[in-house]
Formats: sequence, C-alpha cells, structure tokens
Amino acid sequence: MLDKPNRNFLANNSSPIGNTIAKLIANQPGDYSLQQAFYTSPEIYRFEIDNVLMKHWHCVGHQSQIAEAGQYLVYDIDKESIIVTRAQDGEIYAMSNVCRHRGSRICDGSGKAEGNTLVCPYHAWSYGLDGSLQHARMMPRNFDKASHGLTRLPVRVAQGLILVSLSESPLEIDTAIQTVDGIYGNYDWANAKVIHQNKITFKANWKLALENQVECMHCGPAHPEFSDLHGMGLPNEAQLRQELVERTKALDLNFVCNDLWALNAPEGHEMTFADRVPMKPGVLSATSDGNPVAPIMGNLPAHDGAFSLYYVGPHNHFITYSDYGGMFCYSPKSADETTLTFTWLVRGDAKEGVDYHREKVTWLWDVTSAADKKIVEDNHLGVLSRFYNPGPYALPIEYKTARFTKWYLEAMMRAVETLPAEDAA
Amino acid sequence: MLDKPNRNFLANNSSPIGNTIAKLIANQPGDYSLQQAFYTSPEIYRFEIDNVLMKHWHCVGHQSQIAEAGQYLVYDIDKESIIVTRAQDGEIYAMSNVCRHRGSRICDGSGKAEGNTLVCPYHAWSYGLDGSLQHARMMPRNFDKASHGLTRLPVRVAQGLILVSLSESPLEIDTAIQTVDGIYGNYDWANAKVIHQNKITFKANWKLALENQVECMHCGPAHPEFSDLHGMGLPNEAQLRQELVERTKALDLNFVCNDLWALNAPEGHEMTFADRVPMKPGVLSATSDGNPVAPIMGNLPAHDGAFSLYYVGPHNHFITYSDYGGMFCYSPKSADETTLTFTWLVRGDAKEGVDYHREKVTWLWDVTSAADKKIVEDNHLGVLSRFYNPGPYALPIEYKTARFTKWYLEAMMRAVETLPAEDAA
Amino acid sequence: MLDKPNRNFLANNSSPIGNTIAKLIANQPGDYSLQQAFYTSPEIYRFEIDNVLMKHWHCVGHQSQIAEAGQYLVYDIDKESIIVTRAQDGEIYAMSNVCRHRGSRICDGSGKAEGNTLVCPYHAWSYGLDGSLQHARMMPRNFDKASHGLTRLPVRVAQGLILVSLSESPLEIDTAIQTVDGIYGNYDWANAKVIHQNKITFKANWKLALENQVECMHCGPAHPEFSDLHGMGLPNEAQLRQELVERTKALDLNFVCNDLWALNAPEGHEMTFADRVPMKPGVLSATSDGNPVAPIMGNLPAHDGAFSLYYVGPHNHFITYSDYGGMFCYSPKSADETTLTFTWLVRGDAKEGVDYHREKVTWLWDVTSAADKKIVEDNHLGVLSRFYNPGPYALPIEYKTARFTKWYLEAMMRAVETLPAEDAA
Repeated sequence: MLDKPNRNFLANNSSPIGNTIAKLIANQPGDYSLQQAFYTSPEIYRFEIDNVLMKHWHCVGHQSQIAEAGQYLVYDIDKESIIVTRAQDGEIYAMSNVCRHRGSRICDGSGKAEGNTLVCPYHAWSYGLDGSLQHARMMPRNFDKASHGLTRLPVRVAQGLILVSLSESPLEIDTAIQTVDGIYGNYDWANAKVIHQNKITFKANWKLALENQVECMHCGPAHPEFSDLHGMGLPNEAQLRQELVERTKALDLNFVCNDLWALNAPEGHEMTFADRVPMKPGVLSATSDGNPVAPIMGNLPAHDGAFSLYYVGPHNHFITYSDYGGMFCYSPKSADETTLTFTWLVRGDAKEGVDYHREKVTWLWDVTSAADKKIVEDNHLGVLSRFYNPGPYALPIEYKTARFTKWYLEAMMRAVETLPAEDAA
Repeated sequence: MLDKPNRNFLANNSSPIGNTIAKLIANQPGDYSLQQAFYTSPEIYRFEIDNVLMKHWHCVGHQSQIAEAGQYLVYDIDKESIIVTRAQDGEIYAMSNVCRHRGSRICDGSGKAEGNTLVCPYHAWSYGLDGSLQHARMMPRNFDKASHGLTRLPVRVAQGLILVSLSESPLEIDTAIQTVDGIYGNYDWANAKVIHQNKITFKANWKLALENQVECMHCGPAHPEFSDLHGMGLPNEAQLRQELVERTKALDLNFVCNDLWALNAPEGHEMTFADRVPMKPGVLSATSDGNPVAPIMGNLPAHDGAFSLYYVGPHNHFITYSDYGGMFCYSPKSADETTLTFTWLVRGDAKEGVDYHREKVTWLWDVTSAADKKIVEDNHLGVLSRFYNPGPYALPIEYKTARFTKWYLEAMMRAVETLPAEDAA
Repeated sequence: MLDKPNRNFLANNSSPIGNTIAKLIANQPGDYSLQQAFYTSPEIYRFEIDNVLMKHWHCVGHQSQIAEAGQYLVYDIDKESIIVTRAQDGEIYAMSNVCRHRGSRICDGSGKAEGNTLVCPYHAWSYGLDGSLQHARMMPRNFDKASHGLTRLPVRVAQGLILVSLSESPLEIDTAIQTVDGIYGNYDWANAKVIHQNKITFKANWKLALENQVECMHCGPAHPEFSDLHGMGLPNEAQLRQELVERTKALDLNFVCNDLWALNAPEGHEMTFADRVPMKPGVLSATSDGNPVAPIMGNLPAHDGAFSLYYVGPHNHFITYSDYGGMFCYSPKSADETTLTFTWLVRGDAKEGVDYHREKVTWLWDVTSAADKKIVEDNHLGVLSRFYNPGPYALPIEYKTARFTKWYLEAMMRAVETLPAEDAA
C-alpha cells in the first residue's frame, strides 16, 4: 500500500549519531528529565522523528470534517503533508500531498474536490479521491499512470478519529481501536462533529510539549480555570474516583479503561490508554460555571460529572466530557517548534446558536492551551542553558511524564541498535 | 580587473561534498525533476553557487536606471552586493559593495553620488565612480590607495541591460550580446526606460523558480490572465508561429533568433537564447484587453501581435511586447530563498500619465508573478517530503525545464571533477 | 559557589575547530580587521563564547533597579538567563534562571517576588531570594533540597553596577572595582538611579558591535549629534584634554584613570579602563543644547565640561557626564545577533518632571544607538561577501579597536592551546 519512501536524504557520514545517542542514554539518570541534547539537537530531532515517531500513527482529524463525498482535509507533521479524502462510496483515504509530476503540494488546507478530483494547481495532473492518477496532462498516451498515483498511506478510522501511518511497517493498531470503542463509544464520537479548531505553534521541542500534556502537577500553579473544575490531583482524588465508579455503575454504563501506553504496549503494537476521571464534586462539565453547554453526547443517560481520556501513540491525546470533547494532536516541526492542533467536538446533531454557543464550548481549552504554550516555551528556553541539568520528576504525580521519557529512551536505544551498520558507524 | 576573491571561508574537511554530489548525479533519472538534496541541501547550495552559478553573468539592471552621471544602483545576489555606477564620462562601472577599510556596505539602494563620490557611511573612506579609492580618511599620508579600491567587477552593457560577472574568469559574453542586439535592437531597448520594479522573495530554491520560469505547461492551470493573451502552448501554436513569420516578413523586420542556451552554449561561452512567439489571434499586447498601453517601441512599424524572448545565463530572462517589456532577474539567497527582481520598461521618451499609465503596463506581470510565487513555494514545500521522488517532465512542453536541469547536472559534474584534490576528498 | 555547568552538549568529533582557529590566527594580518570566519562562523561563535567571553564578568544592571528587598531583574546573554535579586538583608544575589525540577525559566523580566520567594510558574517549586530551594512541591519528604537550589553565580557590586560571572573560575575583579570607584565615585553612581532602558538587537556579530563601540573615527560621518558635543577626535583634542586636567584640578577633584584593558590586564585579572575626556568648548553635557538636563551628580562642585569612561571586560562600557550617565552592555545571542542593553542613570534623588525630563536625558544616546545599529548591521552584511578581506585600521584613532581584535586573537589562541586533547584534535 505504502510506497517505499525516498531514501536519498543527503548522506552524512561524518555524524556518528548512533554513538552519540548511545552515550547520552548511558548517562541518563532514571526518572529525571532528559539531557539537553535530546531537547535541542537538530541531529537527534532528525533521528528520532525518522526512527521513532514515524513508526506511530498520527491522528489527523475527525471524520465529521470530511462528512461529504469529495471533501478533504490536510494535516502537516514534520516536513510531511497528508491529504485525507472522503470518496464517493464513503471510504476515507489518506495520501501524501506531493504531486508525482514535479513534487508540488496539491491541496492547501481543507476543501471540496470539484468533480471528485484533486487537481494539482501547478500543471493540472489530476488524481481521484483515492489518490490514483486520473489524468497526467500532456504526458504520452502510453504513460504508466498506475505507478504514478499519490503515495497512499495506511488509514484507520476509530470513533470518527482518522489515524494515519507514514511508516512502511505500521504498528498493529487493532487494540488501540478497540480501546477507543470501549470508552468513547458511550459518547458516540463516531457521530460527533467538529465545531472549531485552533492551530497553536509552540517554540519548543515536541517532547517538552508532551511532558506537559501528560501530567497535571502543573495544573494547580498554571491552570486555575482547569483546576477549579477537575478532580485530577486533588488530595481526595482516590475517593472521588471511587464515587465515580459507583456513579457510573448506577447509570448502567460500561466504560472499558486500560493502560497499554508507553512501555506497556506489546512489541509491535501501537500504544494506547483509556481512563475515567472525576470532575470536582458538583461540576458537570468543563465550562465557566461547571454546567453543560451542549447536548449530552452518545448514549449517556445523564451528565456523569466525569471526563474520559484516550491516548493513541505518544502524541495523540483526547478528552471528553458528557457534552463536548477535545482532541490534542501534536505535530513536531523541528527541534524547537511543535504545532498543537486542538479540535472541539459536540454531538453530531447539535445546532450552533440553538443547542450550543461555540465560545462557551471552547472557553476552557482556549485559555488552558494558551497557558501551556507559554509554559512549554519557557521550559524550552531554560533547557537551552549550560546550567540546565536533568531534574527529578515528582512521583507519583509526574509518573506519566516519567514513563513517556523512559519509553522515548528505550525506543531510541532500540532504533540505534537496529541501525544498518553504515549509519551506526 | 577582478581581485582574487577571499578564500578564507571556514574550511570544512569533514564534508566530502564532491563525493556526495557525484553519487547523487549517478542516481539521477534522465528527464526527471532533481533529487531532493539538490533542492534542499545547504551544502549543495553553497557548492553550486560558488562553482556553477558564479561563473555566469548576472543582469543587475538597465542603464536607464542610472541615466545621469553620478547615479548608482545596488543589486544583491547570494551574500554579495554589487554597486553599478554611471561615471562622468558616461561609462558604467560595477564593483563590490564592500568598503576596503572595515568591510561595511557602502551604498544602500539606488541613489546619486554627491560630488561624484561614493562615501562609506561608516568612516567616510571615499571612492570614485569607478571604485578607485579617493580618500582614505585618517590613514597615513603614504597609504597605498591604489591597491585599496573597491573590487572592480567585469561589466558589459547590451541593449541597455547591465551584465556583471563575479568570476575571476568570466565566460565569453560576445555571442550573448550579439543575440540581444539581433532581437531587442528592433525594440531599441538600449533607449528604453525602466518605469517600475518589484522585488519578490520566493521561499524556494532558485532552481525551482527557474524550472517554473522556462516552461508554460503551468500557464493554463495557473495563469489564466497570461493564457488569455499568449499563443504559447496552444494546440495551433505551430500555425500561429508560421503566421507570425509571415507577418514579420511583411513588416520588413529582421529578428535574429537562436538557441545557444543550456547545453547548447559552446564551452567557455555564456549561454543565450532568442525567440519570437505569437500572441493569440487579435491580441496586440499583454494587457487587460489585449490592446497596447504604451507607445510602440524602437523601429517597429506596427504592433506585431508577438513577443520576443531573450535569455542570458541560466537565470536572466526577458520578454518584450511591442509596447512594453519585462526583465526577470533571479537572485538566490539561500537553499530555500530566491529573489525575483521584475522590472518593467517602455519606450524611453514615453511620458507617464500621457503616453502610458503605469498600472496598465504592470497589470499582467504583477498578477502572474504573484501566482508564480505561490506555485514555486508550494513546489518547494512538496519537495521537502520523504515521499517526494523525482517525477517525469512532460515532453516536449517542459523541454526547456528538462534542459535546464540536465545543464545543471552536467555543470555540477564538471565542477566536481575539477575540484582541487583536498576539496574533492 | 558555582555548580559545575552541564558538559553534555552534543559531542562533535568531526569539527576540528581548534585546528581551524589556529590556522586562521596564523593567517591574520596585524592591525587589520578580522578574517571573515571570525565574524560569521557559528562554530567559532560557539567556541569563543564558551572559551573566551564566558571567562569575563557581565554587567547585568544597576543596583537601583532592585532597590527594595524582594525585587529582582533578569538579564540574558547567549543562551543564558540570569536572575539578580535583592534579599531581605540588602544583599544582592545572582543565579541561573533555570528551575532545578524540569528546567523552566522561572522569572520573566523584572519584578518583585511575592513573599520574598521566587516561584517557578510551571510546577511551583519555590526558591529563596538567595536561590536556595525552599519548597519542592510534591517531592518526597526526604528530598535533598540543599543540593537543588538554583545555580548560584558569583556577583560583585561596584558603584552600583552589578557584575556577574558565569565561569567556574572567574577572573580576579578587584582592580576593576577599584577602577570604577576611582573614577565614578565622584559621580556617586552607587546612589544613582536608572530612569530608562532600551534593548536594541543588532543583526550582527558581537565583535563588530564592540569594534564600533570603542572607536570614534566613525563619530564624524555617522553621529553628527554626538560630534557636535564631544571633544573626542577633534584636531585640538590634546589641548582640550590639557585644559580639562587643569579645570579638574581647579575643582579640587581627583579622578583616577588607568588602562588595564585589552592586552594590558595582568594574567588572570579582569580587564578595565578609565578615562576622562573633554566636551567641546562651551558644552556642559551631552544634550540637545549642551546644557545639563538633570541635577549635578555625586560630589561634583560644578559641571566640568567633561565625561568619564569606564570599561570592565570586553563588552561592558559606561559613560557619564556631570548630570547623567549611560551603560552599554553587549550580549551576544548568536554569530549574527547581539543585543545592546542601554541604560540611563541620573542622581538618585532627582524627581522626574521636576528635576529632569526623561526624553531630554535620553535624546542623544537614543539617536546615536539607532545610528550604530544601522552601521554595525551594514558592516556585518559587507563582511559576509566573498570580496571582503580584512582591512587596515586607521591608527591611532582606531587603536582601541585594533587592541580589541588583538586581545581577541590572543585569547582565542590561548583557548585553543589549553583545549583538552580530544577537543583540540
């Protein structure tokens, strides 16, 4: 399905990057933040993206963004651009946004393909919604169109989430899909709809953004709006969690949680995670007054004073309340730049202005994402200093951050060990 | 004439760039766009500018821009800045815009030299219009002024075009000059005048900009305004060309065309090209309604429903209609940045507001250049992808693009082969 | 006092930077501007900052900026950020602005520490005004707080100037401190106050900025406002200096000048310089009409028609007139970016709007700094050219610039010679 990617990157025999990384890993203290070079070196960035992150699946959007046949969206990660289309038979396809003629980007943002055809704006080569080359303008009659389609990429849809792989040998994704069904099926995310999207660029390494994403130790100092509403990190969190279990049972709902995320994923399988977390007592949703601002989602019989988390891969994170949900999709751009695409969803049949007001739905994660941008950028600036040294994670509250970095180091070590001899030299 | 340029660039013994380039060339498929590294690698950029492009002549402006004695203009290419002056005896000089005292840029944009002297704004060393050091302020009386003039650069003027070389051994330029005389003499470009200039920076490699410049396969999809007017690429282009030949003969005009451009230039000679191309039937000039918007140029007896192309070197391109003309001068800045200086000319004695209105003259190439900027930048973005692979040129319509890249590869191979041993290591 | 800085920068075995620098130094002509690579190479920048500039003391501000207990200021240099605090007992402390938990910057600009505590905005680790860790939020009870304070940096205060070192073995600073006492004590800079600060970023190498700072050959051509007021570089400067000596004697003042700056500083000692320079006849201060615009400073009995210079290290320069003074603190950011922090001071008890008007005080150095930014940036652009070659300094007027570059080359050579074997390879 996936063409062999181009291996003609400029060879760099003088950078024994494998050795450098192996030495750094040998010096890395356990349960401490990473050594400087992991956050700042462009060579390590290149290595980790190509050899670690690109083995994982990327959430590029939600199927409601391309509900109609002929619609497409574009998602960028690293130097890659991905087109995702809805074909006439309803199928969703993913492909590289690189024309096979001269290499131009074909689509620029989302849109609707006129005549169900993607036409390269440069020389008008045209492709079907599945990426197959339909018309190679001005090429000879006997031109081999079959082998000049857009590079097709593996794609899976789960509870509406569109997951794409750029790898030649993608990780097994079935368990991660069962996981989202088991927890987000209750909210019927498959039929939810996207109502807003922000793209926020952090001037920071992607790993610093993710270390921030997976711990709530910073929520108290940095996110007062969040902390007023959520039960995460409260002294009585354990008790609130127990009450939530009972509340959920009383509603006769079945949420399947699991933890096959970083370090816990079986070899060759995409990592995933699902959890249920209580809101503060009396709070029903993450809104300015704690009351729902949109219709109840899925088959929930009542607002349950809880939210559900789902992760797939290291960099795709999701949250849903009973009335709305949010997608956090992190996209590294370079060693010191990362884009967070934050996407809000509500029940699929909700009407704006009647059933919900967009700004009431987006309020919390607008202010919280803006605060995280500042935090993560200040973290990156500090890490650049000669006086930065790895610091100790606070356990247990930063345990997911600790797991994330430990997973990263193990994945890097494995990548170094499996380098072809010439590259590892 | 030309001082030996500084060779004290930081030595980089660890980058066996010659080998890298030779391997890439060996892998390059014929009549396909270039491999990724040729468009994106900063090391290859440095090599190709120093060893290939800098052997060629650069068109830095038109003599009407410095019509009066004491006037000067500045043109930048790569990291270089060139001053071109009009001396008191009418002679045109070119020199490096680098003060010999502390290295400051001396002129900033175009202007008129007060007292026919170029004074460095830093410490007031002053130079004649020919670059000779006139006054080395505060230096000892016996200071060797003769050897501290601005670095003089070879300059030739042809039909008003100012051509400058930065090379120690410039290519033979006489044939290219005879070529422009043979075709643009009819329009008397020597006495034309510049009425407007745009500097447009493309975030793209210079070779992608030039691949775009020399083919009109993209004109249909990307330039509707252009395509409405020009006969290029029409199904009946051959017939229109034949009619043009007859029309020209009837007007008793003699246009000398030739093709000594990429691959066709004799060894050691600058490459050049001249061609006559028909407008669409009924169209007299490249204007919003196809009618002329400025006085007829040169000795043309009538608007001839045609335009004339002239190229010199790989990166200087010219077009002229019977009432106005345009200069496309491409200036690489880095591997991913290129400036196009687009300059409009009309008959030298035409008066603005009376004989022509600037915005009517500039209309077509304003919209067309803006469209090309977008196209070329999207091409560069696509080429960065791991899924980019060289694609097949559409022949014959992209034959000049194919020739351009083939010329480039041959020039690079020759440059690699003639590297001194230590550099090629 | 100073923790051992992190040495885990990514090893770069392929860049024999020591050899490269040694060869360049061998080729450097005497009393000429530096060879291109010294101004433009990122590798040389990294080497010179780490091995030369960081041995010196940095002036990060004036104590009046943190007059009250709990106040702090932040100063950035290269990739470092320094916090300077005023503790409750009046003591001034300097420390690295890098949290020991996850590495975040703690303070963002100047301010007042609430409860005399610096709280990291990320996870709320809190530090005393001396940098000691007070509360490591959510860490185990037995956490070793003593070894997780902010990295403390050597700090000295002299005539109110706050001098900080980032070196493990700072240069001896006592002589430099005696020097400022001997000349600025008369102006009582210790009790002066800061009234305004500009941060100006030059797109230029820091050495080009300093070459500009220490010569006044450019004042005539580039700074007409400055030249109208100051006696520097006048043909009769020697006579004006003699008159100044007599005028000073008549006022019964004792200014101790000395020159232990570049090349003159004893081994292991910070370099320093103090000088008295006359204004033009009839000019009392560097203001638009030459008259004082603020109360007389210190114990001066009268406006003395002179200014006093003080330098400490290669990059901290100061000027004071009888009514106001200015601090020039240069902070390299990268090979082609340098920030000048320019700070204005007046007598400590002067009241704005009554005793002085800020814009009258800041006028001259506002226009002069803006002009220098343009000059130095144009110098950097010129130095990038292949036609740039080192040029001869005009002696004696550029003697301090010549000394600065000679000092730099000697310091670089010493740094290369003392490289550990593996780095020098």
